Amino acid sequence: MDEFDLIARYFDWPARRPEVALAVGDDAAVIDPPADARLVVTTDMLVAGRHFPLDTSPEAVAHKALAVNLSDLAAMGAEPLGFTLSLGLPETDADWLSRFSSALRRVAERWGCDLVGGDTVGSSVLTLSVTAFGTLPAGKIIARGGARPGDRLAVTGCIGDAALGLMVVQDPAAVPEALGAAARDYLRGRLDRPEPRLAAGRALLGSASAGLDCSDGLLQDVGHLLDASGLGAEIDLSAVPLSPAARDWLDARPEDIDRLITGGDDYELIVALPEGTEVDPELGLTMIGRLVEGPVGGIRERHGRVLPTRRGYTHFPGEE
Amino acid sequence: MDEFDLIARYFDWPARRPEVALAVGDDAAVIDPPADARLVVTTDMLVAGRHFPLDTSPEAVAHKALAVNLSDLAAMGAEPLGFTLSLGLPETDADWLSRFSSALRRVAERWGCDLVGGDTVGSSVLTLSVTAFGTLPAGKIIARGGARPGDRLAVTGCIGDAALGLMVVQDPAAVPEALGAAARDYLRGRLDRPEPRLAAGRALLGSASAGLDCSDGLLQDVGHLLDASGLGAEIDLSAVPLSPAARDWLDARPEDIDRLITGGDDYELIVALPEGTEVDPELGLTMIGRLVEGPVGGIRERHGRVLPTRRGYTHFPGEE
Repeated sequence: MDEFDLIARYFDWPARRPEVALAVGDDAAVIDPPADARLVVTTDMLVAGRHFPLDTSPEAVAHKALAVNLSDLAAMGAEPLGFTLSLGLPETDADWLSRFSSALRRVAERWGCDLVGGDTVGSSVLTLSVTAFGTLPAGKIIARGGARPGDRLAVTGCIGDAALGLMVVQDPAAVPEALGAAARDYLRGRLDRPEPRLAAGRALLGSASAGLDCSDGLLQDVGHLLDASGLGAEIDLSAVPLSPAARDWLDARPEDIDRLITGGDDYELIVALPEGTEVDPELGLTMIGRLVEGPVGGIRERHGRVLPTRRGYTHFPGEE
Repeated sequence: MDEFDLIARYFDWPARRPEVALAVGDDAAVIDPPADARLVVTTDMLVAGRHFPLDTSPEAVAHKALAVNLSDLAAMGAEPLGFTLSLGLPETDADWLSRFSSALRRVAERWGCDLVGGDTVGSSVLTLSVTAFGTLPAGKIIARGGARPGDRLAVTGCIGDAALGLMVVQDPAAVPEALGAAARDYLRGRLDRPEPRLAAGRALLGSASAGLDCSDGLLQDVGHLLDASGLGAEIDLSAVPLSPAARDWLDARPEDIDRLITGGDDYELIVALPEGTEVDPELGLTMIGRLVEGPVGGIRERHGRVLPTRRGYTHFPGEE
């Protein structure tokens, strides 16, 4: 099976969106964007053993590779349109490719995002690079800068599950014994299959003063919003939304709270909302703090709790 | 230096194109495409040791990663607009990054293509994934399908230099002794720094009936055009344009002709031109054959020369 067979067999299905005039199979894809739409483009690369555990199923790899990109579109308030996939493969394993391909097609259809092109190459390590693009109505955007002092800080969903899910994989001895199989599965599922908050992002377009997705750790990403907006923040750690599994975990090991707020891989949205903004309860937003005048980038805890110095994940720790 | 410092230091320069409303630094880039333009998207992944020799300079890596993508845009007749870069790095080497970044900025400016976003991750092998996008006027395109029997087959530039350049690197003992240092440097340069044929692609938009870029080997890529157009071809091997260095090489080792037409990495354009099409001599096109009714995908040589069975490069040779 050379790469042309491989593409034909696993990555060439009909595009569903009318904007996609030419998809997989030529030198490039051709898209006719809606009139007056702004185009939003984002890219993320995932490397096996770094961005997902080596034992991750092909279905979960497909899900995560697309989800983390769509999460960036969600953070801007954009609607997904299409994506490209570059795949570096150590081998051509027909079972793996078949499962990966089916899962990718399924999530792409669910999120309304067509595979329009890609590249398949040999590599010593499984590597995926997705570039996703979507549309925004003219003149509207949620960016990292733009928050004002007094705005409330809110997050979607629950924070910290994926960090605990990674511990379930990497350090099973550290998992509290009280945690049952269902809770462990839930946490692992949150690591493997993040859900891009597309509906929330679109609903917040026009009301959020700033926002981004939470991928590197809550504190680190709040810090990015603060840096871009030139503000500080006061957050209330006790208000950070936690899943039942995470609560059970913290009951047994309260010191792990730092991992939850710095571990990353949440793919929830963090937004700033001007005081008085009406929020649809369906969006699942939780208020966790407030933006304040400087020091820029500084985060203080409302009850005086000392926050960890290292705020999140970094790819190149400790190098020059 | 964490990845945020790294991006700020090496990959965050002002966008030059007015269409780019928001570039590096937020969750996603925002682009306002020209009214009525079609959007063209392509992606290519490059892995060190596979797509370029391990000793390739950072300047050449930057050049090639962008060039091979823009070559796909050129093949469609599109004008480049912007690109994203995902970079998997084994280490953060400040000298390498600084040289890579300067070279990338230089070629991006030369080709009128803004870096709008990217991702920087740790990886055991240097891996680059570029997604480039450009624009086409409404209703116009050069695709692989669409050629007609009787159309002439033409290529830009010279074919086979990069394949010989790879031999200069990988198998110096096989290089004819008569080949001087300048010729060797020229061939290596053609491997390292392909020039996307953007002007030719745009000039051929509207006159070429089909086209693609020559990246996997002349015969293989002609085969792709034939498959998509449902045609066969007759080519004249003696008409395939060769550089002076390649001619000198073949004078010493005529049997290497097969490598030149199957080696790939040419990044020239292959186009089908209806009989009677007037071609600007400035485009540097050479007629190498003619399209014929079937057998579909078949290529015969005008003088009866037997063509190699293996038509080009494949990433996964010999696997099931």
